[in-house]
Amino acid sequence: MPEDRPIVALLTDFGVEDAYVGVMKSVIAGRCATTILDISHAVQPQNIAQAAYLLWSAYKYLPERAVTVGIVDPGVGTSRKAVAVRWPRGHFVGPDNGWMSYVIRDFRAQESGAAAGELPRGWEGVELTEPRFWLDPVSDTFHGRDIFAPVAAALVNGTSLSELGSPLASLTLLEIPPPTGGDGSVRGHVIHVDHFGNLITDVPAGFLPERYAVAIGSGTVEGPARSYESPDPLVALVGSSGSLEIAAPGGSAARLIRAAVGDPVSVTSAKKSGGTPTHE
Amino acid sequence: MPEDRPIVALLTDFGVEDAYVGVMKSVIAGRCATTILDISHAVQPQNIAQAAYLLWSAYKYLPERAVTVGIVDPGVGTSRKAVAVRWPRGHFVGPDNGWMSYVIRDFRAQESGAAAGELPRGWEGVELTEPRFWLDPVSDTFHGRDIFAPVAAALVNGTSLSELGSPLASLTLLEIPPPTGGDGSVRGHVIHVDHFGNLITDVPAGFLPERYAVAIGSGTVEGPARSYESPDPLVALVGSSGSLEIAAPGGSAARLIRAAVGDPVSVTSAKKSGGTPTHE
Amino acid sequence: MPEDRPIVALLTDFGVEDAYVGVMKSVIAGRCATTILDISHAVQPQNIAQAAYLLWSAYKYLPERAVTVGIVDPGVGTSRKAVAVRWPRGHFVGPDNGWMSYVIRDFRAQESGAAAGELPRGWEGVELTEPRFWLDPVSDTFHGRDIFAPVAAALVNGTSLSELGSPLASLTLLEIPPPTGGDGSVRGHVIHVDHFGNLITDVPAGFLPERYAVAIGSGTVEGPARSYESPDPLVALVGSSGSLEIAAPGGSAARLIRAAVGDPVSVTSAKKSGGTPTHE
Repeated sequence: MPEDRPIVALLTDFGVEDAYVGVMKSVIAGRCATTILDISHAVQPQNIAQAAYLLWSAYKYLPERAVTVGIVDPGVGTSRKAVAVRWPRGHFVGPDNGWMSYVIRDFRAQESGAAAGELPRGWEGVELTEPRFWLDPVSDTFHGRDIFAPVAAALVNGTSLSELGSPLASLTLLEIPPPTGGDGSVRGHVIHVDHFGNLITDVPAGFLPERYAVAIGSGTVEGPARSYESPDPLVALVGSSGSLEIAAPGGSAARLIRAAVGDPVSVTSAKKSGGTPTHE
Repeated sequence: MPEDRPIVALLTDFGVEDAYVGVMKSVIAGRCATTILDISHAVQPQNIAQAAYLLWSAYKYLPERAVTVGIVDPGVGTSRKAVAVRWPRGHFVGPDNGWMSYVIRDFRAQESGAAAGELPRGWEGVELTEPRFWLDPVSDTFHGRDIFAPVAAALVNGTSLSELGSPLASLTLLEIPPPTGGDGSVRGHVIHVDHFGNLITDVPAGFLPERYAVAIGSGTVEGPARSYESPDPLVALVGSSGSLEIAAPGGSAARLIRAAVGDPVSVTSAKKSGGTPTHE
Repeated sequence: MPEDRPIVALLTDFGVEDAYVGVMKSVIAGRCATTILDISHAVQPQNIAQAAYLLWSAYKYLPERAVTVGIVDPGVGTSRKAVAVRWPRGHFVGPDNGWMSYVIRDFRAQESGAAAGELPRGWEGVELTEPRFWLDPVSDTFHGRDIFAPVAAALVNGTSLSELGSPLASLTLLEIPPPTGGDGSVRGHVIHVDHFGNLITDVPAGFLPERYAVAIGSGTVEGPARSYESPDPLVALVGSSGSLEIAAPGGSAARLIRAAVGDPVSVTSAKKSGGTPTHE
């Protein structure tokens, strides 16, 4: 019993102090009647990598056929392309600057021999070149309002991708260093610090041994914990995005150990507990 | 002419920096077409009492049959129960940790002889035990997404409470010290500091004499004022939630007198004005 | 394919920490099924001029027939009027304190001989005097909830303006000093600093020479740039609202040159570039 029409989801670095988000929603609502969701508008200004992470943490949960508009767009008004992309469960609309990188990496992981930037199998994209779908005039500084919002509404209304522009063979990708390792040890990075100060890493659950020790900054923490509730100052567990997360029960891990995005984490196998207690 | 379907209202401590709220809305919108409202997502992390106050300040205004999802959930993944509750005007869905306490107190105030924690008359609750209504798999750290959002959508779609789990006789309640007093004097507490710096207390309008003096911190202020507009640095009045409120016209009372949640306030009867001016 | 019913757009200084916005939406959603948009809730407390600017930056993009509710209301509960106004593309509802001033100035610019405060041609307004459309009781401190939200819902549901109150001949206007100038030089002011630290001025695009130099604070910047991407520390360009804007590529112009709302800017004609480079 979801809505008949695709919903629109928005992800921007616009903040909420100005009318920018409201104006985009106004343009969309004036052209199609559908639910408009906020993924987030608190991406740090111009931080494409953060937008890419947030999209990745959300994309599996988007309703079928959702039109997701992502606007972190330091290159607005330059030669960077404006694109619309169809992936198996909906559309992405925004600048071609890498904000879909983590999602594309997930899809590319199942393929082999694809060239960097090439669209994953089953995806299709166009460069937005048809001004008849845009507002008129188009400003140099707010394509979210003038191009991406009306294009999103056109997709909701059933416009086909091919009407919107010319085919696109590749997309700009961010360089995302994957976690590395072997022999029971993994090296990764903090890729996001959330509202609670939880440190979210790029080490996927599948890379973790049954019991492990995580070294981050000057501290070490053993895992996995099963929840955020613990007498310990820090816990390590698999977070809701499916990767290793370090949290401080009742507090902020980021503040407690002064960690930030980009900090390295190192995971090694730890002795199993549950048997004879080891001397410690 | 409101919507046919129940709307969903969300109250969380998730903030808006991450995709957590957007993901919950995505799960809901993917399962039912209805309006999704934000009560607030700015509850201080893990502050159940603040969520309880905010729900209380809003509940009388919720549309009929609204499904209100409250997620301030430090115990996620532990043995705390997940519950859905029907009250006379809708449903509450979330962890069983006290976030409905102020609302329940309102309902219990009209009863006598009820045991602590017992559901008020006319309420019904279940512990959520039926995984077929949840996402699969269920994470240990994000039941808002994996359990509460899909259960809320099920309620919107007409699923009955009894399908969702097993009956619940009692709910966890916060200990809320009521205001005390007599002989024209009342002692209460600041229970919320709002966006404007207004100090909202737990002293209900009905406890206030016609004219009164409020002692808070090192200051005193006479009331009631009729509005926030005044040449005085501080005013005391009955706020929009129906309890005593201290405000600083054009500024922040919290900053002006350095008051915070939990601070005691004391109200005493003051001489009536309007007759012969008293010597002062 | 927009919605049949008018949408509601909200602009307030309520912030998002409290349930104030959620309560207003609850009142509206309980009375009419329509899309409710946020223009912004981050107007500085009691800053009517900022609300007026934000409304102006958004109003041309509002869907046809939108009911826009603006609540920056330091005078709530005093004798300030509560009003509803029909303008050619929808309705405005809120206190009569100047928050529509920039929009009215746009409309008045096309007229001559109108008295200050008089409604522009084609506009119609009423003072809200009919309590049967309000919540009962009406608080002294939250007319957004008790008067403006239910009146907005009534307008969405087709209630005519004349049922809501008595005709209004004039509206309170803010004094907005217009930019001044002549002989190729213009003096204006910073009227908004946005989320990115961009300095938005009141100097309209039409007042700018082909090439120009902007003096602001201790700095000077030549324009126009075509985008925010530049090796220069500062760029000047026509922003998305159609007026002169100063930005710092990849950073915050407000922080870089310590500029704020109200600061004067002075624009003078600059030599054309594109020919032989001039000695500099």
